Amino acid sequence: MSLIVQKFGGTSVANAERLFNVANIVTQTYKQGNDVVVVVSAQGDTTDDLIAKANEINPNASKREMDMLLTSGEQISASLLAMAIEKLGFPVVSLLGWQAGFYTSSAYGTARIKRVTPDRIKKEIDKRNIVVVTGFQGVNRYDDMTTLGRGGSDTSAVAIAAVMNADLCQIYTDVEGVFTADPRKVKGARKLSVISYDEMLELASLGAQVLNNRSVEMAKKYNIELEVLSSLTKAKGTIVKEATKVEKMMISGIAKDEDVARVSIIGVPDRPGLAFKIFSKLAAKNINVDIILQSIGRNGTKDISFTVSHDNLKETIDLLNPYVDLIGATSVVYDENVAKVSAVGAGMETHPGIAAEMFEALYEANINIKMISTSEIKISVLIDSKDADKAVAAVHDKFFGNALDA
Amino acid sequence: MSLIVQKFGGTSVANAERLFNVANIVTQTYKQGNDVVVVVSAQGDTTDDLIAKANEINPNASKREMDMLLTSGEQISASLLAMAIEKLGFPVVSLLGWQAGFYTSSAYGTARIKRVTPDRIKKEIDKRNIVVVTGFQGVNRYDDMTTLGRGGSDTSAVAIAAVMNADLCQIYTDVEGVFTADPRKVKGARKLSVISYDEMLELASLGAQVLNNRSVEMAKKYNIELEVLSSLTKAKGTIVKEATKVEKMMISGIAKDEDVARVSIIGVPDRPGLAFKIFSKLAAKNINVDIILQSIGRNGTKDISFTVSHDNLKETIDLLNPYVDLIGATSVVYDENVAKVSAVGAGMETHPGIAAEMFEALYEANINIKMISTSEIKISVLIDSKDADKAVAAVHDKFFGNALDA
Repeated sequence: MSLIVQKFGGTSVANAERLFNVANIVTQTYKQGNDVVVVVSAQGDTTDDLIAKANEINPNASKREMDMLLTSGEQISASLLAMAIEKLGFPVVSLLGWQAGFYTSSAYGTARIKRVTPDRIKKEIDKRNIVVVTGFQGVNRYDDMTTLGRGGSDTSAVAIAAVMNADLCQIYTDVEGVFTADPRKVKGARKLSVISYDEMLELASLGAQVLNNRSVEMAKKYNIELEVLSSLTKAKGTIVKEATKVEKMMISGIAKDEDVARVSIIGVPDRPGLAFKIFSKLAAKNINVDIILQSIGRNGTKDISFTVSHDNLKETIDLLNPYVDLIGATSVVYDENVAKVSAVGAGMETHPGIAAEMFEALYEANINIKMISTSEIKISVLIDSKDADKAVAAVHDKFFGNALDA
Repeated sequence: MSLIVQKFGGTSVANAERLFNVANIVTQTYKQGNDVVVVVSAQGDTTDDLIAKANEINPNASKREMDMLLTSGEQISASLLAMAIEKLGFPVVSLLGWQAGFYTSSAYGTARIKRVTPDRIKKEIDKRNIVVVTGFQGVNRYDDMTTLGRGGSDTSAVAIAAVMNADLCQIYTDVEGVFTADPRKVKGARKLSVISYDEMLELASLGAQVLNNRSVEMAKKYNIELEVLSSLTKAKGTIVKEATKVEKMMISGIAKDEDVARVSIIGVPDRPGLAFKIFSKLAAKNINVDIILQSIGRNGTKDISFTVSHDNLKETIDLLNPYVDLIGATSVVYDENVAKVSAVGAGMETHPGIAAEMFEALYEANINIKMISTSEIKISVLIDSKDADKAVAAVHDKFFGNALDA
């Protein structure tokens, strides 16, 4: 008998028909003799609808009240799913985050799980109940409701799997697994049968929104085997596990991130410590900086460029503008019409030619590269956003186009 | 400085505009230097919508999951109201039933408040926060969500007022107070400025759904002065308080209850103990029986009739049908097309002619009386449901028609 954690996203539980589809998956797993803990997100657009309702009343509502509002979403989906499972004749109980023992930090809206105390879950499993837990939420040390931020239900599922030593954590979603590129956009994109945590992390942070990044980090830390699969087809999904157990693919995927803007500080005096000061200023405001590029000095000055998300652009500019004078730089300029295209693969560590092949593909497609950033298992380029889809297709075709069995 | 508990029903918080109307009432009270605890129901038709959603999935869903679902309704309205109060610039915090210390019995769907531990409410009031509490809900000893049944938010409000020694408990609703009859249906119905707990109890249990019955019982027990008033007009409402402080009105109101069905067991053998057995059987299933009538014995048998709500009719019949054979009765028959019309007034204790006047009014309107039941301050008659409105008008006209200043 195994313990299996199954997480279902909002589209998987969007309506009565979908809920019964999920109830069938869950009870099939239970009938095979497994213990099953189910983690659910809010139905379909519920969270967005609740946010719209709140904005109508008070666009500056406190995050505490926002979390109080939003946590109702999973409460509804969890109880409805439990009712569907009851209808199929199986013993089930739904639990809210606080009932399931999810204790989080106090940061409303972006809380982090501090610990999971699964006493209640264990008690229900001992009674042979299927346990449905609300994802995305917990309770902080003031006994107030918190949410983990977008995609937090993945993290909830992995946290339960970790603390309960689950044998498998299945993340059911609306795609069939992890693909070499977005299958809706790239012809020939194919599903990976297996991928390492690190590759998945790179892909996730690069805009492939199949899995929430924190959930993959946690799965890696506790060595929880994940399976990403669709709730709507019967197809096998993608297994995410330790790199040592994964045959190294040259390239496991091509990802695109359009939520990116380039900021450049022009004419920064060539003195030590200025870059540190600039970036610690941004870090203090929780602004995440991605690709950083520093030009070679010229006339005692240099240019520093980096990328931020669109959300953070205005704050970044407002923060740097007065600072630019202070440090004696010339100006701050920015470009919103950029996109980041990345190739990820654990195999590239040992294959030095990958970067060159990627640049060749972009050259052949007549796409200009604005910035480059690499890690052991990733190459990212910044290009004009209008070229993004073409770039993904070109790079994907370069690595996957000639090998249908890759 | 006074502590005032204000309860707002579903129509009072149905949309953004109404929420701001409520926020204005609450913050006005707060600005006058009072501590304010607000109890809210779910918005408008939320509870009905959630029930419909559940029925679509599983009409026989467990009551536990039903309560898990329904408690989300007040969670949404409470947080939205808190956001509206924040928008007006006042300090506020919303609390769920369990956070506010509402411990209930385990009877999902019809839980009773066992105790209220208002530590958290007090702490928030000490911080000068306006406290918004979800009505209608609590938590049982298993740490599971429970609901108090329809109208339970009134009880929540009175319970807080009782345990915190509030100076006043205002029940805001969509009518301006307690009327001598339903003002939407009866011409000349007028608002009472004051009414005793007992009269209010009779009126409430007779179908005048202004106040939940348990809330009035609790207010009476703890001597909490209630005010029933409209959230939409500025008019003074009706005060509900101790009988000794209320001038006895001959008749304080006429009420109609259409949610009633008559059940008759025909040919019950005239043996002691059978009536007891029949009604204890119903009580064991939590079926509430109202007017009971037993015919005079004939040929060693008698007929026993009583009324139940429509909800309980099927279960009652199913329960009694096999039992009828067992005790040697003839059959069980029922009539759904009946209604109960009642006159309530503390003054009728000392005015023996009231019943006769009421029957006269019905006779003049050519309405047949099927059953009669009386208490010290109430006379109820069972009639054809098609005659219900006519009967209320006739009885109201009899007692109030000629005295505009009554």
